[in-house]
Amino acid sequence: MIILNEQDRIMPMYLQLYAALRDEIRSRIRPPGSRLPSRRRMASELSVSESTVDGAYSQLLSEGYIRAVRGSGYYVCEIDDLITFRSDTQPKDSDISHSGKIEVDFSASRIDHAGFPYNQWRKIQKNCFDELQPELLSSPPVQGYLPLREEIAAYLFQARGVHCSPDQLVIGAGTDHLLQILSFILDSHYSLTMENPIYLSTVAHFERLGHPVHFVDLDDQGLNADELEGLSHTLVYITPSHQYPLGFSMPISRRIRLLNWANDGEDRFILEDDYDSEFRYDSRPIASLQSLDTAGRVIYLGSFSKAIAPSLRISYMVLPESLLTLYNERYTAFSPAVSGFEQRVLAEFMHSGAFTAHVNRMRKLYRMRRALLVDLLSAWNDQIRISGENAGHHLLLTDLRGWSEDELCRCACSAGVRVYPISRCFHGELPERYRSTVLLGYAGLEPEEIRKGVSRLKVAWKLHNV
Amino acid sequence: MIILNEQDRIMPMYLQLYAALRDEIRSRIRPPGSRLPSRRRMASELSVSESTVDGAYSQLLSEGYIRAVRGSGYYVCEIDDLITFRSDTQPKDSDISHSGKIEVDFSASRIDHAGFPYNQWRKIQKNCFDELQPELLSSPPVQGYLPLREEIAAYLFQARGVHCSPDQLVIGAGTDHLLQILSFILDSHYSLTMENPIYLSTVAHFERLGHPVHFVDLDDQGLNADELEGLSHTLVYITPSHQYPLGFSMPISRRIRLLNWANDGEDRFILEDDYDSEFRYDSRPIASLQSLDTAGRVIYLGSFSKAIAPSLRISYMVLPESLLTLYNERYTAFSPAVSGFEQRVLAEFMHSGAFTAHVNRMRKLYRMRRALLVDLLSAWNDQIRISGENAGHHLLLTDLRGWSEDELCRCACSAGVRVYPISRCFHGELPERYRSTVLLGYAGLEPEEIRKGVSRLKVAWKLHNV
Repeated sequence: MIILNEQDRIMPMYLQLYAALRDEIRSRIRPPGSRLPSRRRMASELSVSESTVDGAYSQLLSEGYIRAVRGSGYYVCEIDDLITFRSDTQPKDSDISHSGKIEVDFSASRIDHAGFPYNQWRKIQKNCFDELQPELLSSPPVQGYLPLREEIAAYLFQARGVHCSPDQLVIGAGTDHLLQILSFILDSHYSLTMENPIYLSTVAHFERLGHPVHFVDLDDQGLNADELEGLSHTLVYITPSHQYPLGFSMPISRRIRLLNWANDGEDRFILEDDYDSEFRYDSRPIASLQSLDTAGRVIYLGSFSKAIAPSLRISYMVLPESLLTLYNERYTAFSPAVSGFEQRVLAEFMHSGAFTAHVNRMRKLYRMRRALLVDLLSAWNDQIRISGENAGHHLLLTDLRGWSEDELCRCACSAGVRVYPISRCFHGELPERYRSTVLLGYAGLEPEEIRKGVSRLKVAWKLHNV
Repeated sequence: MIILNEQDRIMPMYLQLYAALRDEIRSRIRPPGSRLPSRRRMASELSVSESTVDGAYSQLLSEGYIRAVRGSGYYVCEIDDLITFRSDTQPKDSDISHSGKIEVDFSASRIDHAGFPYNQWRKIQKNCFDELQPELLSSPPVQGYLPLREEIAAYLFQARGVHCSPDQLVIGAGTDHLLQILSFILDSHYSLTMENPIYLSTVAHFERLGHPVHFVDLDDQGLNADELEGLSHTLVYITPSHQYPLGFSMPISRRIRLLNWANDGEDRFILEDDYDSEFRYDSRPIASLQSLDTAGRVIYLGSFSKAIAPSLRISYMVLPESLLTLYNERYTAFSPAVSGFEQRVLAEFMHSGAFTAHVNRMRKLYRMRRALLVDLLSAWNDQIRISGENAGHHLLLTDLRGWSEDELCRCACSAGVRVYPISRCFHGELPERYRSTVLLGYAGLEPEEIRKGVSRLKVAWKLHNV
């Protein structure tokens, strides 16, 4: 018995009828093969219009509950039983992030928020979102929007000595995404050789794609090419400008030895991750490894996360010719991952000069914050040592009295301050010389926060002034 | 002999000195181990200030060309020879896209550009880009911005009957990116079972990650679960709402058999790609397969490429509990791939109701365009057959006279019209019954373009009116 409610303002009559018939079919009240009443008869039985029945039947038809037999009518289809039909489920509350008593967070991934040129970005955004640009809503090329690649190529040449044509640039949705692409295009017998310590999550994509992963321990100048002898079909991943997390830069001698090592075999590549190269404070930025490469052995990787905002998921890599060929063969059938619209905005932000001006302003600001932090910490020069402070957004602090990383982090935390362990960047055991070392980022902290953080740390760590 | 030019307005003195010394070191005029003159002496020799020498030395020091020995001075480091130093290379011209005489392009991937609510989007963008929102510039969660996931969950329930909590939603940078994630989190012994025909590029990620790939030929109701008997540890990829490219929707009987097949084993999943489900013209959208799933076997995949714009690289998937656990274990250490800012704009676009209004408007528009195209083509009903026209952005045209796909495409092309082959969607040989079938998209074409295209096709294909 089908009951329809004409007063129902949410569900139109034809849908009520559709749902009622559907349920009768599902529950086998109308068994497979049985014939439905003609439209006219059904309409008159239920005192509804024929168009209501029409709507219900056509919905049942398109979902495959019934089939039409020309000149004969509608018949119920053969449908397997579903064990049960889905019942409504309560959406779960999403995890509540653990309540933070942390008042000062020396995170290395934060940037300064107040200094962002909001008005300029808004204006460029508005201008770029122009309905008269026919390609605005279309999918961008998988390799990236050409004017953006041109801007990045020009910027890289000027700022980092990187030689590349826009053709060699691949735009990706963050560094992890570019590593996915890279490990996708390389044959799986290529291994990945990583600095140890390193940002460890980068390893997983390579491992999952079947690439063997090796680690090479660093001395205080970075990676030593001697350790690579005998390796072939390998991609050496390094952060030469500002080693993460240790903070030093690789001296030119090491760089050249590494390049010469790579030049010795067709099957050796160096992946230079220049993640925060815009921010070098005590001397000019060191020329990139890529700028010294004459044989197409270096893949250069960069990102706008530090220089603009982590919210903007745009990174890029420069591929040498041989890998560019592989990329074109193996990857260009995929769809792009970076918003075409945001690529336009960024291209215009760079083209207008606003990007360079912003980076220069931020460099000044971060230099001041770093100086303040270093100055304040220097009061305990005999108890702590600072290192890796020449560039980027973080420095390392080593407790010369021998407190462990864990003690340092825990005591800071109980005083409302977060400092970061570096042991999780090490593959294998934490070397003895780093057991008392923690990482402090400063770029996202106002001067008063830095002061507050340091004075809390003094108490928490029981430091006494010189 | 070092010559510095005080008049050089581009390169400051200290950099000129740095470059000159660097070249002397590289060319071994200053051999490894040799001592550099003291700062005072160098300054007086060159008649420059000590601070100029200071700047040059500190740059050489930071790049590792020289080292400082306390109380003794600066010494040249041991540096391997690089075979040659890089010479400037001419950037290559980027490929010129092949000149198009195509005047009407029946592409299925185009959307209507004029109908986009530019003003609303601009306004939302401006409002969202608010410097008072502290998280605006920060990296979004890797799974996606929570308010966006909430909007999508509500939309999916209302529009597609999909039951999910925002916790089950994963936001990705396009469908290919979500497939990368999915194949990454699944163990590699999971195979992928694909409809044949299908959009073939989706296969590559699974193959590259070591998943075996099977194909199942479709009959005219879509995939038949009988063909899957015996398969285990498999993910069945289907487009039940509007098969790509054939255009039909899977009847409920097939859907339920497929679900019952999946329910028979812990290790069977169905990947439902609902890529253009917003656009169904002759009846209500068919409820999704996911809405019938009671056992957590269906992964639901959707995208904003058709409903908003291909330029916006935002897609989403709904993971059943068991896969959500794997995702949380295996993927959350990675960084997100979708701009936090664009996720905010989209969330607000949905929240304001503008999304639903836009989709409704577009559905009406596309329905009209489809009707026009179908009407115009109907003049040759005895020579051609139309199919797959009930939904989406494209339909299929079959030449009943038996012209081949290749002839149809080539003759259209020489008349300035692009229609699309479907053979490239087939794994293996094109079945005989599709040898005269081509694909025509219509969503991105104005009525006058559709008229022009059809009248050109009439001549090119030698069709005569009934």
